[in-house]
Amino acid sequence: MVIVKPRTLSGFMELLPAGQVAFEKMIEVLKNTYALYGFTPLDTTILEAAEVLLAKGGGETEKQIYRFLKGDTDLAMRFDLTVPLAKYVAMNQNELAFPFRRYQIGKVYRGERAQRGRFREFYQADIDIIGDGALDISNEAEIPSIIYRAFTALGLKKFQIRVNNRKVLGGLFELLGLKEQAGDVMRTVDKLEKIGRDKVLAILCEDFGVDASAAKTLIDTLESTDPVATLQSFSGKNELLDVGISELSIVAGYMSAFGVPAENFKIDLTIARGLDYYTGTVYETIMTEHPEIGSICSGGRYDNLAEYYTEKKLPGVGISIGLTRLFYVLEEQKYINSALPTAPADVLILPMTDDITYAVTLATGLRSAGIRAQIHAEKKKLKAKFSYADKLKIPFAAVLGEDEITAGTVTVKDLQSGEQNALDFGAAIQNIAEKLAGKADITVISEPV
Amino acid sequence: MVIVKPRTLSGFMELLPAGQVAFEKMIEVLKNTYALYGFTPLDTTILEAAEVLLAKGGGETEKQIYRFLKGDTDLAMRFDLTVPLAKYVAMNQNELAFPFRRYQIGKVYRGERAQRGRFREFYQADIDIIGDGALDISNEAEIPSIIYRAFTALGLKKFQIRVNNRKVLGGLFELLGLKEQAGDVMRTVDKLEKIGRDKVLAILCEDFGVDASAAKTLIDTLESTDPVATLQSFSGKNELLDVGISELSIVAGYMSAFGVPAENFKIDLTIARGLDYYTGTVYETIMTEHPEIGSICSGGRYDNLAEYYTEKKLPGVGISIGLTRLFYVLEEQKYINSALPTAPADVLILPMTDDITYAVTLATGLRSAGIRAQIHAEKKKLKAKFSYADKLKIPFAAVLGEDEITAGTVTVKDLQSGEQNALDFGAAIQNIAEKLAGKADITVISEPV
Repeated sequence: MVIVKPRTLSGFMELLPAGQVAFEKMIEVLKNTYALYGFTPLDTTILEAAEVLLAKGGGETEKQIYRFLKGDTDLAMRFDLTVPLAKYVAMNQNELAFPFRRYQIGKVYRGERAQRGRFREFYQADIDIIGDGALDISNEAEIPSIIYRAFTALGLKKFQIRVNNRKVLGGLFELLGLKEQAGDVMRTVDKLEKIGRDKVLAILCEDFGVDASAAKTLIDTLESTDPVATLQSFSGKNELLDVGISELSIVAGYMSAFGVPAENFKIDLTIARGLDYYTGTVYETIMTEHPEIGSICSGGRYDNLAEYYTEKKLPGVGISIGLTRLFYVLEEQKYINSALPTAPADVLILPMTDDITYAVTLATGLRSAGIRAQIHAEKKKLKAKFSYADKLKIPFAAVLGEDEITAGTVTVKDLQSGEQNALDFGAAIQNIAEKLAGKADITVISEPV
Repeated sequence: MVIVKPRTLSGFMELLPAGQVAFEKMIEVLKNTYALYGFTPLDTTILEAAEVLLAKGGGETEKQIYRFLKGDTDLAMRFDLTVPLAKYVAMNQNELAFPFRRYQIGKVYRGERAQRGRFREFYQADIDIIGDGALDISNEAEIPSIIYRAFTALGLKKFQIRVNNRKVLGGLFELLGLKEQAGDVMRTVDKLEKIGRDKVLAILCEDFGVDASAAKTLIDTLESTDPVATLQSFSGKNELLDVGISELSIVAGYMSAFGVPAENFKIDLTIARGLDYYTGTVYETIMTEHPEIGSICSGGRYDNLAEYYTEKKLPGVGISIGLTRLFYVLEEQKYINSALPTAPADVLILPMTDDITYAVTLATGLRSAGIRAQIHAEKKKLKAKFSYADKLKIPFAAVLGEDEITAGTVTVKDLQSGEQNALDFGAAIQNIAEKLAGKADITVISEPV
């Protein structure tokens, strides 16, 4: 037999069991949160016809894409969940009810240059709300509430949702005579936090020929410590700006009713989001202790989801979390809760006799009560079996020897405290169930103090 | 704008929202069931180095595989979950605790000829138990219990788990002087149910030169109505056969303690499973009203999971469900429960005022109580909003007009019964929660009577 060295591709994440449990818990929390807001799950194909997936074409994406021929068919692996959503909505527009709210959590593929913390296969968790022809501003106001509830349910406390409106930026550009360079100005402004005020001013004036005083007014406005008041001073001077200010005020005004605390929400006029795509509210989410990580949940309002696939106008709003990267970052920052139960079983049943009928009966009883039980009947020493429980962090052992069988009991050992008791089956099941119930609320994330 | 016709590739399944909810419910039930038996979740990469994935090489699989170059890298998409498991266990053998029990539910890819009910991208749901060097027979006995609990939890009642042991077949072949043709005989015998006794006898004698009387004895034994008694008559004549009979008896003997009813379990000596791979107990699962569908859950015991990747001997036992095909079959046979709640929300909140603060506050309260709520604030007629609820089968509407705001109430309408009541927020939340609790146990599958 020729042995091939087993390996996983560079830029592809494969977790050990304990990490995988934490990752799946993260997905479960997000699914449950999205469901609370009326989002339906969606699952699109990972492989698509290249012609369909690349309908929009061009850009950085096309170079990174995994694309190949199978027979005569030109195939490509999805590189995000937005293009597949656009395809799905366009295809099924007569079957769907609008507004269409869907979440999708799935793998996407980008053949980027491999580097630490960058992945080529990674999970995205997306939600989008798609309207038919129109979509009320209240949907834009609801998004921060979803972000807040999701991260809070994960156990994160120190984060801030930063919100801006592209109409505010667009209106300011018009007002300052920068409409022609709007795209370049937008992308430059987006770098404010990263490269700082001076470099942004230099790029605006030197690279894009923006008038120095206009550039200064723009940056002063965007960096204002009281952005709402500053914006009000421009009121009535530009139509687009007025709409933007109004939308931003509506969004901010609903935060309290949505239960989003003031410390987790901020209007930040410097948030631009690079994509041309966005037309209204835009969102970023920062871990306040780790701003260097950048946004962990971003998105915005757009006017036309599926213009490459249908004449129908489909405005929407959506956000995305890069889950694989987030998990990587959380692990690196020691934010994954070490108290999170990751054991594959709640009870390890240790039969000491050849006939294990008694152990099987106990296992069946535990499982019917919703308790995860594993029978360890391998021919190994008892000490090795306890080491196994220890390595997997299984919280309880149930020992069944001749004595227990004769007495009709089971010796339940709490492997954390070392405490052990001989109980009859019913009492054992109840005892274990009660102790497990206390651990149900442990979150995935625990912030270091 | 050039419009590209949106489409999904042939042989790829994409479900509408209601179907997707049922599909995800199926996955959730399987995950919960596997967890009860101490299996840990695993997620391996979909893309692998071709050299690694095809270490075993050859066969039908290699022709069907999606394989391509990205730069200089020879890549392939996984075609099952067993090879990735072998790779994973070989790679991480020092990190894992044995026996290693894992489940994996994920997409696999096979470029088969497209035909009705055959998929090129499809979900498999696999469990395997891997031992280091040895694995106790009790693990083989536990598998039917997992299959039983899984399908029962899904709502299926009319199914039968059929079990055989490859050592029984191997022993019989030795005893009847068919050892040399064992592989061919095994694969022919596997077709007994499909092509019938006469054709199998003809193939054995004519194609593989089996002696007519040996062939008849073999088929008579395999088709015996009392297989255990028939096998006992061969006792002591062949060592392998004796081991097989003993293992089969042990497996069958534990069924009652595992809670598997007699009508859902059968020793069937005609079950061979095509793969050379299996060495002990083998499993198939038949929908008793639809045997023509074939096995919906199959697997068996094998001696060496990862011989292409490591010198370490890793015996195991596992089963697999082809979930996408199963779902397709269930839909086609009208087995998907029409009573399964598929609505994306429990309550549709209908604000009748421009300021929706009051609606947002109700939504926040409902969500905090775990009730899925959607605010429908689009500028549409009330009638259209009720149609929306109807189309999505949302069970409750909460109407909030000026009257309700003044009175501090909400009008809760049960959209199934038409009943409606004005309640204060707390009472409304409690009322809806109670009515929803009654629907929690509805299974995915409901068999037509």
